Amino acid sequence: MRAVDIIVSKRDGRTLTREEIRYVVDGVTNGTLPDYQASALLMAILLRGMTREETAALTDAMVHSGIRVDLGAVPGRKVDKHSTGGVGDKTSLVLAPLAAACGVPVPMMSGRGLGHTGGTLDKLESIPGFRVDLSLEEMKAALARVGCAMIGQTSQIAPADKKLYALRDVTGTVESIPLISASIMSKKIAEGIDALVLDVKTGSGAFMKTERDSRELAESLVSIGNASGVKTEAIITTMDAPLGRAVGNALEVIECIEVLKGVDSADLVDVSVELAARMLVLGGVAENREAAEQKVRGAIASGAGLDRFRRIIEAQGGDPKVIDDYTRLPQAPYHHIVAAPRAGYVGAIDAELVGRASVALGAGRDRVEDPVDPAVGILLAAKPGDAVRAGDPVLEVHYRDRGRLEAALRLTGRAITIDDHAPPRVPLIVGEVR
Amino acid sequence: MRAVDIIVSKRDGRTLTREEIRYVVDGVTNGTLPDYQASALLMAILLRGMTREETAALTDAMVHSGIRVDLGAVPGRKVDKHSTGGVGDKTSLVLAPLAAACGVPVPMMSGRGLGHTGGTLDKLESIPGFRVDLSLEEMKAALARVGCAMIGQTSQIAPADKKLYALRDVTGTVESIPLISASIMSKKIAEGIDALVLDVKTGSGAFMKTERDSRELAESLVSIGNASGVKTEAIITTMDAPLGRAVGNALEVIECIEVLKGVDSADLVDVSVELAARMLVLGGVAENREAAEQKVRGAIASGAGLDRFRRIIEAQGGDPKVIDDYTRLPQAPYHHIVAAPRAGYVGAIDAELVGRASVALGAGRDRVEDPVDPAVGILLAAKPGDAVRAGDPVLEVHYRDRGRLEAALRLTGRAITIDDHAPPRVPLIVGEVR
Repeated sequence: MRAVDIIVSKRDGRTLTREEIRYVVDGVTNGTLPDYQASALLMAILLRGMTREETAALTDAMVHSGIRVDLGAVPGRKVDKHSTGGVGDKTSLVLAPLAAACGVPVPMMSGRGLGHTGGTLDKLESIPGFRVDLSLEEMKAALARVGCAMIGQTSQIAPADKKLYALRDVTGTVESIPLISASIMSKKIAEGIDALVLDVKTGSGAFMKTERDSRELAESLVSIGNASGVKTEAIITTMDAPLGRAVGNALEVIECIEVLKGVDSADLVDVSVELAARMLVLGGVAENREAAEQKVRGAIASGAGLDRFRRIIEAQGGDPKVIDDYTRLPQAPYHHIVAAPRAGYVGAIDAELVGRASVALGAGRDRVEDPVDPAVGILLAAKPGDAVRAGDPVLEVHYRDRGRLEAALRLTGRAITIDDHAPPRVPLIVGEVR
Repeated sequence: MRAVDIIVSKRDGRTLTREEIRYVVDGVTNGTLPDYQASALLMAILLRGMTREETAALTDAMVHSGIRVDLGAVPGRKVDKHSTGGVGDKTSLVLAPLAAACGVPVPMMSGRGLGHTGGTLDKLESIPGFRVDLSLEEMKAALARVGCAMIGQTSQIAPADKKLYALRDVTGTVESIPLISASIMSKKIAEGIDALVLDVKTGSGAFMKTERDSRELAESLVSIGNASGVKTEAIITTMDAPLGRAVGNALEVIECIEVLKGVDSADLVDVSVELAARMLVLGGVAENREAAEQKVRGAIASGAGLDRFRRIIEAQGGDPKVIDDYTRLPQAPYHHIVAAPRAGYVGAIDAELVGRASVALGAGRDRVEDPVDPAVGILLAAKPGDAVRAGDPVLEVHYRDRGRLEAALRLTGRAITIDDHAPPRVPLIVGEVR
C-alpha cells in the first residue's frame, strides 16, 4: 500500500477502504506517514467528503491508535456529555454534579478553550487547587467515590487525533464534518463510556453557523456513536448570544454555583436540565424524559447537586470553600460598564464577538500554548429581549490591563444592537437526533 | 499574511492575489513555509483550479525564486523548444542542430527521463564524454561558438519548482494544468530565451490523454509565455505509438544521426521539421512557415545539420566520432526479436507500455535517483499500419539482463495488436495554439 495512491484515490472522489484508512491513521500515529502526505489527504477529504462508512472506519482507526479505557469495575452505566463549543457554555459544571447526584456515573474528559469558545478545563482550573490531570487510576477512584470525574484527555486516548488535529489547525482542514466527527467521537468512544449526550451548537457563535450543517454533524456523530456500541443522542441548541450571563473562567464557575443554589439563569438552566435529564434516561436511572427532569430539578431544589459539586472539587484537590465564598476565586482588579447608548430593547448580543472580546481580555487563547487569566471576563447585565433605558448597563467587563480592555471594547462595540421593538423569541433547543 | 488563510481561501474557491502567491513561493524557496502547508495548498489548487492570472502570477513568482539568465551578449533571437514528454520523443537532438545550422541560437535546458517517458539529458549522456552540466558561463560560450548548447537545469533556475515538484510527486498533486504550466514555463522563462515552441503530446502514451486536456494545457502554456515576454506557440501532436523507431538512449541517438544523414523516419522527421521551422520563424531567420521548412530540409540535405551536431558534441566534451561509428556508443550484449503471432496489419503499438518496457530493461527510471543503462532499449521493426506476415519481427529488444527482459516482454506482449485490416491513419499534428 502506498500513501500517494490513497491520496490520489480520495482526490479523484473514490471511497477509501477500511484498510487504507487504517494504514493512514497508523502511519500518523507512529510517525511513518509524513505530515505533507497527511495534509494533502486531509484537504482531499475536506473537499471530496467521506461516506458514513469511511467516517466510522476513520473513527475506529483513531480509537485503536490508543487505549480504550475499561470502566467495567465502576458499577452503573457511565454517561458523558459533549458540546461542540459555545460562548458562556458552562453546562458541564452544572449537569455533571446533577447527573452524579441522581446516580449516573459521569467520567468526563474535556478540552481547553481555543478561539472564541471556552473550555471546561480552564474553568475548573480557576478553582484554587483543582487538578484536571488525574491519572486514569485516580480518575477511576474519583468516579467510584463521588460518581464523577472531570479531567483532561490523556495522551493514551486517541493519540492519532492529537496529531491530526494539530495538522488540521495549520492547514485549513478543520471545517470538515467527517473529520470533526471522527475527532470528537474517537475520544469519547475511547473513554469507555456506555452512553453519550451531545449538545451540537448552531448559530452565529457556533462552529456550525446553519441549522442544516449542525443537523448533519449531529447525525454523523450519533451514527458513529451507536455503530461503536455507545448509545448516543444529540440535541441542537442555538448559540447566537452567549449562554447564561457569564463569559470568563472564574465568572462562569460562580454562575454555575449560583444555578446549583437554585438561582434561575433561564437559558443556562434549560439546556443543562435538558442534557442532564437525557443522561439520566440513558444511564437507566429514570424511566422517561419527564421523570428524569423531575429528578434533576429535585437535585437542584434539595441542594444535592451543589453538595455533589463540593465533593467533586474536594476529590480533585480543589478548595471547596469557593462555593460559599466567591472571593476565594481569582478576581479581576477593575470593572468597566458598557451602557446602552439609547432606550429600547436589546436586539442581539453577538456570541462570537463577546467570545473574542473575552479572549482579548486574556480569558481565552488564540494559540494552544497561550496562558489564560482565570479572573477576567464579561458579565451580561442584560440579555436579548430585555428593555433598557439609555445609560443602563448592558455588559460588565472584568479586566486587568487597560490595553486589553480597549481591544475588548472594540469588539463588544459591534456585538450589541438596541432596537425599537423586542426581537422575536428564538427557541433554545431547535432539534434532536437519536 | 498567514499561510493558513491563503490555504482556506483557495480551499473555498477564491482567487489568490499576486502577493499571496508570492508569499507562498518565497516561503517554499527559503524553507519558511512548512511542507505540510504547501501540500495542503497544492491539493486545494488541484481540486479548485486557478485562473489564468493566478497561474501567470505563480509562474512569475517561481521565475523570481532564482535567476533569470541574461543571454543579451549572444546576438540573435534565442529560441528553445519544449515537449511535454513522450515515448521515443527525440526531436530535440534533430531540431536543435538544424535550427542552429539555419542561424537560430538554441539555448536548450532539458530534463531527465521519469516514468515511461525518456529525457534528452539521458540520451545525450549516452555519447561518451558528453557533458550536460555546463556552468552558465560555459553554456554561453558554447552558444556563442556553435549556436547551440544542450544542458540540464541548474540549481539557480527556478529553485521553487524543484521543491514544489518533489512535493507534488509524493502528494498526488501532479495532475493539475495550472501547476504543470507554472512548472514548465517558470524554467523556460528563466532561461533567458526570446521565443519558445512547445510540443504538447496527446494520446495514450502522453501525460494528457485527451485532445481537450492537451489543448487546455497548450493554451495555458502559450498564454503564460506571451504574458512574460517570451513569444510562445504550441503544436499538439499524437502520442499513441512511440515516435520514430527507437526507444532507449543510445538507440535514439543513432536514429537522430540517421535522420540528420537524410534517412527518412517518417513521423520523427515530420515533427522535428515542423518544430524547427517554427523556431526559424520565431527566431526571425525565415519570412514564413514555407520558407522556414525549405531551409530546414535544406540543412538536412546539405549535411549542415549533421555537421552542426558534430560541433555541438565536440563543444560539450563528447566524442564526435560516434557520428561515423555507432559502435563507439554503448551497445547491449543481447537482442531478442518479438515476432508477429499472425499475418495482418500492425494495429497499435502502445506507447506507454513500450515506454514502461524500456524502463523495465533499465533505459529509464521510476525514481529520480535510479541510474539508467544507456545501451538497452527497443527498436520498432514495424510501425502501426504496416503489413506483416506471421513470424515477421515487430520489435527488437536490446537487453543486458534476462530477468529484466522477461519483465519487459510481459509489457510488450500487451502493447501490440495485429488486425485484419489496416488501422485508420491518425494525423500526427492535430492542432496548434499561438
